Amino acid sequence: MEPWQHRVQYYETDCMGVVHHSNYIRWFEEARVQLLIEAGLPYHTLEKMGISSPVIGVQSRYRRPARFGDEVLLVARIVEFTGSRFRVSYQVSNKESGLLLCHGSSEHCFISPEGRPVSLKRENAAMYQRLLELVEADYGA
Amino acid sequence: MEPWQHRVQYYETDCMGVVHHSNYIRWFEEARVQLLIEAGLPYHTLEKMGISSPVIGVQSRYRRPARFGDEVLLVARIVEFTGSRFRVSYQVSNKESGLLLCHGSSEHCFISPEGRPVSLKRENAAMYQRLLELVEADYGA
Amino acid sequence: MEPWQHRVQYYETDCMGVVHHSNYIRWFEEARVQLLIEAGLPYHTLEKMGISSPVIGVQSRYRRPARFGDEVLLVARIVEFTGSRFRVSYQVSNKESGLLLCHGSSEHCFISPEGRPVSLKRENAAMYQRLLELVEADYGA
Amino acid sequence: MEPWQHRVQYYETDCMGVVHHSNYIRWFEEARVQLLIEAGLPYHTLEKMGISSPVIGVQSRYRRPARFGDEVLLVARIVEFTGSRFRVSYQVSNKESGLLLCHGSSEHCFISPEGRPVSLKRENAAMYQRLLELVEADYGA
Repeated sequence: MEPWQHRVQYYETDCMGVVHHSNYIRWFEEARVQLLIEAGLPYHTLEKMGISSPVIGVQSRYRRPARFGDEVLLVARIVEFTGSRFRVSYQVSNKESGLLLCHGSSEHCFISPEGRPVSLKRENAAMYQRLLELVEADYGA
Repeated sequence: MEPWQHRVQYYETDCMGVVHHSNYIRWFEEARVQLLIEAGLPYHTLEKMGISSPVIGVQSRYRRPARFGDEVLLVARIVEFTGSRFRVSYQVSNKESGLLLCHGSSEHCFISPEGRPVSLKRENAAMYQRLLELVEADYGA
Repeated sequence: MEPWQHRVQYYETDCMGVVHHSNYIRWFEEARVQLLIEAGLPYHTLEKMGISSPVIGVQSRYRRPARFGDEVLLVARIVEFTGSRFRVSYQVSNKESGLLLCHGSSEHCFISPEGRPVSLKRENAAMYQRLLELVEADYGA
Repeated sequence: MEPWQHRVQYYETDCMGVVHHSNYIRWFEEARVQLLIEAGLPYHTLEKMGISSPVIGVQSRYRRPARFGDEVLLVARIVEFTGSRFRVSYQVSNKESGLLLCHGSSEHCFISPEGRPVSLKRENAAMYQRLLELVEADYGA
């Protein structure tokens, strides 16, 4: 899959002159949404099944700042999937220099409209299989 | 009513070193929410009645910048109410200097869960009366 | 010039299920930045000349909501230019349906690093001319 | 020190009906700013010394959602300080129910205006001592 590209906006910077660290967490989401679209599991499909996948954890390490006008590339990968939870890793780099700006990950579960945990394996075997393949595609032998 | 107080946060600044102009629009909302609470018409009451009051227009004029750490005061007033629409005006000033930073207004209608316009006069006479009084309280003879 | 395209992100929505109205003000900025790039007057050029162009006013009217995942198109135009101030108008539409979602405008002045008003006509005749042409290009006979 | 109190704003929610996870990272900053003020080390003091303390890492775990109108309390503590880096932990709870919503931490270094790492021990012994005490105050025997 192609990296997700984001142009740094003025409103994403702070008075240190660089992108505020909270915005990388938002860019992670942009890349994750695109990852799931390309994987054939877009948000709207999950939603129609009555399944949502809230963020249960997020972490981020900042290496170099991004600045207004920069084009940044995000590589998102599903690195873990247990049937009821998955983890996505992210790498953010400057498109021009290729330098790594930030890396991180987010964890997600599946829940029903009532907020109960959903086992994808039981609820939707096809989707379970698709997610398993995505993990293997990146990290299989 | 007391002005609404907001401390300018680091994440609200931009790389010009001052608060990004879009955040004043968000502060307007903070002050409006508080205005409706103090008027006895909190958001949750409207919501329970199945009424929401989306923003249909907003305008803002910027006079002086606000900076990280500043305490700003917002005075919000209902300046028009037609039964189906209302307009709130805002004045944002620096708490310490008293100087005006920004002024603006927002317009709102009432809609049902299906997105249809609601006449408050017909749907809820008590609330209609309360809003009328609020306009008069500020601007009556 | 091509309209500026923006994909509505999850983090731009609010609990009414649609895009929060403050984000349109941010999208205006995205389109304005791109407009000035295409006009040959990118932000960094202004900055190198020690000129910034802060927002002194903004207004927006909301017609229809945008939702998560929507692609929206923004048409930005310079509609006024006095030598020391300019105004940009915006139209936001849904890419798929073509329906108008929002329209608005923003006003800007030019200031020096010390915060003093700058007359572009006096400071930079070439840039002054370029901006004049942009206004005329859109609205000339 | 008193917990930092934050009222959940409408613009902080997303279309899942709860606060978007990126905003907790912003609330961490609000509480951290206040922590440093109360510790006698406000941002502006650091800034005057030419020292900034950018975020080099952040992590957050989400337990329960916060909703529009909720009052949330943040407890921030300096849990590590090496002389050139420090780590702050955060606990976010619902004021009314007392339930834990989120916990996390952020790491920070000290840098000079040129972006070089600064050893606080060498640069400012008094401030170094003050920070050491803060760590000990919370976790000393």
